[in-house]
Amino acid sequence: MEPISQRKRILKLTVQTGMGDNRTIVAGGAQFYSPEYFIGKKIVALLNLAPKKIAGIMSHGMLLAANVNNKPVWLVMDENTPVGAKII
Amino acid sequence: MEPISQRKRILKLTVQTGMGDNRTIVAGGAQFYSPEYFIGKKIVALLNLAPKKIAGIMSHGMLLAANVNNKPVWLVMDENTPVGAKII
Repeated sequence: MEPISQRKRILKLTVQTGMGDNRTIVAGGAQFYSPEYFIGKKIVALLNLAPKKIAGIMSHGMLLAANVNNKPVWLVMDENTPVGAKII
Repeated sequence: MEPISQRKRILKLTVQTGMGDNRTIVAGGAQFYSPEYFIGKKIVALLNLAPKKIAGIMSHGMLLAANVNNKPVWLVMDENTPVGAKII
């Protein structure tokens, strides 16, 4: 059941960009995080990438994470950071 | 006193890279942060840049921040994140 095994590591997120749209972003690491973890989080993402199909789903960006023993530790901003603030 | 005014916005940091060295990194935003703010923080930095002289000091990397009304809000990792973890 390789395909199902693979899906278990994939998260499909709906991300508010702060640019007036919501985007679907597909990320790895589902084996470490519940979907609820992301609710309300101010995550850091690359949004100026070409869309890419991952596990059959079009992903319109990429979350940034530190790689800690192959577990993604997401870059998360303080809750006071406005949605859509640009990384410089 | 333009030069002194400019220096007041510049921070000189000594950053442990997790690659066996410490680096001097010059960052802006000194008007918003005390040097003590950074002590022990797990900050996110670009380290594969060419060294650059800023305010007369060689900087060997660049801290990442969200730009919030021209104030840098530094990308800071959870204290459990190992020093030197790579961003993916």
